[in-house]
Amino acid sequence: MPQIDPAFADLLERPIIGELATVRPDGLLQVNPMWFQYDGSHIRFSHTSTRAKFRNLQSNSAMTLLVVDPDNTQRYIELRGRLSEIVEDPTGNFHQVLGRRYGEEDTPAPPDAADRVILVMAPEVIRTR
Amino acid sequence: MPQIDPAFADLLERPIIGELATVRPDGLLQVNPMWFQYDGSHIRFSHTSTRAKFRNLQSNSAMTLLVVDPDNTQRYIELRGRLSEIVEDPTGNFHQVLGRRYGEEDTPAPPDAADRVILVMAPEVIRTR
Repeated sequence: MPQIDPAFADLLERPIIGELATVRPDGLLQVNPMWFQYDGSHIRFSHTSTRAKFRNLQSNSAMTLLVVDPDNTQRYIELRGRLSEIVEDPTGNFHQVLGRRYGEEDTPAPPDAADRVILVMAPEVIRTR
Repeated sequence: MPQIDPAFADLLERPIIGELATVRPDGLLQVNPMWFQYDGSHIRFSHTSTRAKFRNLQSNSAMTLLVVDPDNTQRYIELRGRLSEIVEDPTGNFHQVLGRRYGEEDTPAPPDAADRVILVMAPEVIRTR
């Protein structure tokens, strides 16, 4: 697993909304703002098994997260990798964990909890600027 | 060419830095902050013929631009499309046009002007939120 340059680690620790790119079955690219959590080796996202990004990743595991410093948009970290694991989250607990990380203390369990999954991304290449 | 919802047109008019996704020859995805200009039908970027994104687009024309409202990160426009044209820009003039659009009035001609190109993206699908 590539190492995070300590000078850029704050971008993964602060509650900054990242942009996640995936590939659609039609070959076009999808980019969405996403909450995320970095656990020291992998990036975790809360998602559901019924939505487009999940289907995208079933047909093409490539995924890249860009995190831009809101205080200096010239500064960013880009993590290029692939889906490494899908973890069932039938209570939606991880969605609530992320909500609290992003300052929404009272994030309720999501109404689609039964379909909730954690997408786990393994970074292969890390670029910083 | 798909129409832009007028309620989201400001995201293409204001000098907001977008995030551009392309596909690398190794299959991993690349996402970078980019200056852009919307001309009413296409999105234009200043780039060079010697850098990675240019090579990516030579092997896979898919490109998607995400523009998030810095005043409300829940609000965004996503333009999914493909490279439609590469325009030579040997004076780097378009780089300076973009510089002025983004508030850098004195943007000099870039040192790599000889290699400068304008990447023209044709949006095929537009998503807003």
